[in-house]
Amino acid sequence: MAAGYEHPYAPRDLELPAFVPNFLTTVDILITYATGSILAVLLVWAFSGRYPKLSKTDRIIMCWWAFTGLTHIIIEGYYAFSPRFYQNKTSFYLAEVWKEYSKGDSRYAARDPTIVTVEGITAVLEGPACLLAVLAIAWQRPYRHTIQLAVCLGQLYGCLVYFITAHLLGHGFSVNAVYFWAYFVGANSPWTVIPTLIAVRSWRAISAATAAVARSPGAGSSKKAR
Amino acid sequence: MAAGYEHPYAPRDLELPAFVPNFLTTVDILITYATGSILAVLLVWAFSGRYPKLSKTDRIIMCWWAFTGLTHIIIEGYYAFSPRFYQNKTSFYLAEVWKEYSKGDSRYAARDPTIVTVEGITAVLEGPACLLAVLAIAWQRPYRHTIQLAVCLGQLYGCLVYFITAHLLGHGFSVNAVYFWAYFVGANSPWTVIPTLIAVRSWRAISAATAAVARSPGAGSSKKAR
Repeated sequence: MAAGYEHPYAPRDLELPAFVPNFLTTVDILITYATGSILAVLLVWAFSGRYPKLSKTDRIIMCWWAFTGLTHIIIEGYYAFSPRFYQNKTSFYLAEVWKEYSKGDSRYAARDPTIVTVEGITAVLEGPACLLAVLAIAWQRPYRHTIQLAVCLGQLYGCLVYFITAHLLGHGFSVNAVYFWAYFVGANSPWTVIPTLIAVRSWRAISAATAAVARSPGAGSSKKAR
Repeated sequence: MAAGYEHPYAPRDLELPAFVPNFLTTVDILITYATGSILAVLLVWAFSGRYPKLSKTDRIIMCWWAFTGLTHIIIEGYYAFSPRFYQNKTSFYLAEVWKEYSKGDSRYAARDPTIVTVEGITAVLEGPACLLAVLAIAWQRPYRHTIQLAVCLGQLYGCLVYFITAHLLGHGFSVNAVYFWAYFVGANSPWTVIPTLIAVRSWRAISAATAAVARSPGAGSSKKAR
């Protein structure tokens, strides 16, 4: 094992050569994330106010898409393409996030191929699609519900893979129960609950539009779209 | 290592206690699968003929959904819940399938948690959804394109996880290049190409319906479904 600090993660025999501990505290990391997220949300709230046709629910959902899209692209994108983040010797924020989060799930530091795969798909495909969803809602594009449903299903599939593989591996990747519940369970649960709610909403909207077209054939040619 | 035959899989040091080799030949296994699939397709083709409103494309796609749904439920469902299939001492067909397929990807015999997870999601969630898609098309339900898109995205996500994790692990799970190309690549490629085609078709159909409703507000209340 190369020279380095002892890592805090479980299991204890996980080898992380040249590991460098966190520089920032948990509170610093969370406050930075919260501040950035609130700024993004406020910006999108202001932007969405320029479209008077949008409902309040639409505007709130746009804020969610901006928040989750930026999280996917910036935070998770950094992880997916930074195999040696735990060796980072600066207090670079994104490396700090993953050094901290690995206390809840050491598969991140260990570079578990499934974690890297799911994070890669999330960052590269779902992240940009989330931002496209913000614009699709603002501009009332005909695919606005389709793209929302698609991203929600991707997020839910990712969560399923994340939780089921941990279960099949017998867990044991958290430093202790606090990190297990706060990071492994807590930090991920919004991405199970919110995509479910939005998926149901978009599913219903699509069904309503399809049913409306079926009731009034004059609304559009249903031959191609049957 | 428990008593048993030597397994044929790669890597050679993979431990499979009490392994029992295939009873059926490759040709037997493929002919059985082909025969069962053709029967299912013919049945659905006949069933779909009772709905004169359906286009030929709809009917062909219904046959695909029946074929892939039964494959997910029966073949992949057996795998997901049979951790010891490679010890099967009879010529039970479903165990034979996976003993044979493992020559193309030994992660199946090795019970790789990611493989088990993806196969479990495919069998339990996507399989029944495929069969529901057959009925949704036949009965022209307003969610017929939504469910098709949802299943296609699930199948594509599963394929991405399957191929990317193999790549990150450095491959080396196939007995030789023939099994790599025939089983690992060949047997899986239909589930990358066909879901892509159907997803695009359903995406367009949903957009067409949504656009039609937007053009003629009388076709349905767009307030809730906005």
